[in-house]
Amino acid sequence: MLKSFQDYYPDYFSYCYGCGHLNDHGLHIKSYWDGDEAVCTFYPQPYHIAIPGYVYGGLIASIIDCHCIGTAAAASYQAQGREMDTEPPLRFLTASLHVDYLRPAPLGVPLKVRARAREIKGRKVVVEAALSAEGEVCARGEVVAVQVPEHLVSKQ
Amino acid sequence: MLKSFQDYYPDYFSYCYGCGHLNDHGLHIKSYWDGDEAVCTFYPQPYHIAIPGYVYGGLIASIIDCHCIGTAAAASYQAQGREMDTEPPLRFLTASLHVDYLRPAPLGVPLKVRARAREIKGRKVVVEAALSAEGEVCARGEVVAVQVPEHLVSKQ
Repeated sequence: MLKSFQDYYPDYFSYCYGCGHLNDHGLHIKSYWDGDEAVCTFYPQPYHIAIPGYVYGGLIASIIDCHCIGTAAAASYQAQGREMDTEPPLRFLTASLHVDYLRPAPLGVPLKVRARAREIKGRKVVVEAALSAEGEVCARGEVVAVQVPEHLVSKQ
Repeated sequence: MLKSFQDYYPDYFSYCYGCGHLNDHGLHIKSYWDGDEAVCTFYPQPYHIAIPGYVYGGLIASIIDCHCIGTAAAASYQAQGREMDTEPPLRFLTASLHVDYLRPAPLGVPLKVRARAREIKGRKVVVEAALSAEGEVCARGEVVAVQVPEHLVSKQ
């Protein structure tokens, strides 16, 4: 089975409420390459409401955040010509998150996020994302991701 | 008992996953005046993890979002010299959300958010917020809130 970016995270980074497979209460956001873009498909729960019928904006921010952080890691491995299961692991945290909400996202359909690393510079990666429902872009996001110092990554 | 800003929302706006009292699965974020600032105290759950010991960034974004939207409403009533329980109700949605993560917020302590409407112009309110844990600012946020058209507000 195709592994998601998040499946490569060391255990220490796998408790994230947004995307950690070791978090029993979490959202389990998963990201994959699709050509030169990273894609994530997410199915909100019926209670992830903003106003009735529409998806909660904080959930949209969370999906964009975790998907972009995963994309930052995957793009960094790629830029170094490395597979994601090679050492040392490259892990990122969010320095800033920006979301523009363009139109309400309907509840009850899958959300699709497409992201791309716009800039990789030293320990910083800028990732931009568009979140769509039923083919229409509902939100655009930008995440500035910063690589976690190695002494923290090895703290598994 | 002192009513929070969110306690004044019409039912139609009270299903929000972040702050709606009618959402059984939600976060139940609540906001109050403290002088000329709006404050919110939030207790993350043990599973709201980013990396072990620290609070998930998407939750921080969600708290800032709902608290700033509540602050936009409360500040708008205040600017019009009106109480929050007067008609017509003023309700806001998020046009954009920006969060700068300055330092990891520790899990296990309450988070405090202080917000202030920086600009009220027509149907738009810009709100800025600082989120602290144990007296240290961990994140700063800015929300551009836009007033919901009246035909939507009355759709309760």
